[in-house]
Amino acid sequence: MTLRSENNEVFKIELRVRYAETDGMNIVHHSNYIIWFEAARSEYLIHKGSSYTELLEKQGFHLPVSEVYARFLKPARYPEMVSVKVWVEELRSRKLTFGYQVVNSDTGETLVTGYSKHICTDLEGRVRAIPPRVRAFME
Amino acid sequence: MTLRSENNEVFKIELRVRYAETDGMNIVHHSNYIIWFEAARSEYLIHKGSSYTELLEKQGFHLPVSEVYARFLKPARYPEMVSVKVWVEELRSRKLTFGYQVVNSDTGETLVTGYSKHICTDLEGRVRAIPPRVRAFME
Amino acid sequence: MTLRSENNEVFKIELRVRYAETDGMNIVHHSNYIIWFEAARSEYLIHKGSSYTELLEKQGFHLPVSEVYARFLKPARYPEMVSVKVWVEELRSRKLTFGYQVVNSDTGETLVTGYSKHICTDLEGRVRAIPPRVRAFME
Amino acid sequence: MTLRSENNEVFKIELRVRYAETDGMNIVHHSNYIIWFEAARSEYLIHKGSSYTELLEKQGFHLPVSEVYARFLKPARYPEMVSVKVWVEELRSRKLTFGYQVVNSDTGETLVTGYSKHICTDLEGRVRAIPPRVRAFME
Repeated sequence: MTLRSENNEVFKIELRVRYAETDGMNIVHHSNYIIWFEAARSEYLIHKGSSYTELLEKQGFHLPVSEVYARFLKPARYPEMVSVKVWVEELRSRKLTFGYQVVNSDTGETLVTGYSKHICTDLEGRVRAIPPRVRAFME
Repeated sequence: MTLRSENNEVFKIELRVRYAETDGMNIVHHSNYIIWFEAARSEYLIHKGSSYTELLEKQGFHLPVSEVYARFLKPARYPEMVSVKVWVEELRSRKLTFGYQVVNSDTGETLVTGYSKHICTDLEGRVRAIPPRVRAFME
Repeated sequence: MTLRSENNEVFKIELRVRYAETDGMNIVHHSNYIIWFEAARSEYLIHKGSSYTELLEKQGFHLPVSEVYARFLKPARYPEMVSVKVWVEELRSRKLTFGYQVVNSDTGETLVTGYSKHICTDLEGRVRAIPPRVRAFME
Repeated sequence: MTLRSENNEVFKIELRVRYAETDGMNIVHHSNYIIWFEAARSEYLIHKGSSYTELLEKQGFHLPVSEVYARFLKPARYPEMVSVKVWVEELRSRKLTFGYQVVNSDTGETLVTGYSKHICTDLEGRVRAIPPRVRAFME
C-alpha cells in the first residue's frame, strides 16, 4: 500500500492489543480499529501541540468525524503489538481526510487500512475554516 | 439470592447480548456487566421520570459512581437474552446504593450480581442532599 | 435516503442510547454506530433463524466483515431511542453487502447511514459460497 | 494508599486516555478502569512470560475473573497520561487476588483503586491448582 500524505509525514503509535478488544472469534472486534484510528489521530494532534480538548476549549474549534471507512485484510489478535499509522491525506479549507494503516509490529503485515473525513466547525456546530495553527503543521 | 430493596421495587430491563460484547473466550467480557448495570439504573431513572441528562441539566444534580462491585457466577454468551434487575439497596441523605442481578432470560439462572455506590453532587462536584423528587420515588 | 434492498425487506431494531456510549462532546461516540450496525445485522439473522453462533457451530460458515463505512449526519444523544434499519443491499455467490440507516425514533430524522461488506468463509477461513439456507431468506 | 504485595513487586503500565473512553461528563467512563485493570494484569503476565493465550493454549489453564471492585476517587480526563499499577495481593493454591491503583502520571494523584479475584481452572472450567510456573513468579 502506498501512503499518500499531503506533507509526506506519517505519524505512528504502537499499542498492545487488549484482551477486552477481542471477540468470540478470538480476534480483535472490527469496531476497535475505528477507536485505534482515533487514538493515532489524537496522538498526532497532541504531538503537534493540539489535543481535541485544546482545540476545543482554547481555540473554539473542533473536527467532528463526518465519514469513516475501514478495510479489514487480516485480523489482529491478542496479545500482539500493532502500529497504527496516520497521515493527512487531503487538506481543504474547511475539511480534511486522515488516512490510516494498522500493521502487525512484528511482521510488518498490513492488517487494516482506512480513512476518516472531518469537517471543521466552531462550538455552535457551524462550518468554519480550519484554524491557521492547525493548518500550518498539516501542509 | 435475596433482593433487598428499600422500597420493595425491582426494576428490570432485557437485552440481547451483542457480539461485540464477547471476548476471546467466547463469553461476554466482564467489563460489559458494569455497562449493563448502568443501562438498567439509567432506564429505572427514565422510567421514574429522571434521566441523567434531566437530573443534570434541569435539576443541577448528578450521581457519580463512587464504587462498583461485581461477582461473576456464570458467563453470559452471544446470542442470549439477559435480564438486568436493579433496585435501591440503601438510601441515605447524600448517597445511595443500587443492587444488580443479571439473569439468563430463558433459564432464570443468575449470572452476575453486584452493586454501585453513588454520591449526590451539584454541578461543581460538591456533595449535596439527594433532591426530594428523586428521593420520593426511591423510598 | 432511498433504501435499496435485494428483497425489499428492511429489518429494524430499536435501542436506548447507553450513557457509556457517549463521549466528551456529550454525543454518541462514532465507533458505537459500527457496533449498532452489527447488532441490527445480528438480530436480522436471528430473526431469520441463523445467529452467528448457529452459522458457525452448526453450519460451519461465517461472514467476517471485510469493509465497513459510515456517514455521520447528526449525532445521537443520551437518552434518546434510536432505530437501526438493516437490509441486504447486494447478494453475490460468495459475498454480500448490508446497508444501514440509524434514525431517531421520535423525530424520524436520519442520523447515520452506512454499509458493511462480508465474505463467506468456512471455519478455516477459505472463501466459500453462501450456504443455501442463508441465501434463501436474502433473495 | 499502601500497596500490599505478596512478593513486594508492583508492575506498572502507562497509557494515554483515549477520547473514545470519555463520556458525556467529559471524564473517563467508569467501566474503562476495569479494562485498564486487565490491561495492566495482562502486561504483567506477558512481562513474566505468560500471556492469557499462552496460559490457555500451551498450558491448558486460565484465570477467569470471579469478582471485581473499583473505588473512584478522582476522574481521569482526556488527554491525560495515566499509570496503572498492578500487584499480587493474595495468592492461594487455587485462587489469587490482584490489586490495582490508577494514578495521574503527571501529578501522581491516585484516581482509582480496586482489585480483581480469579480462580484457576482447566479448559473445561474445573477448578485447578495454579500451575507452578505461574505460581513461581508471584511468590
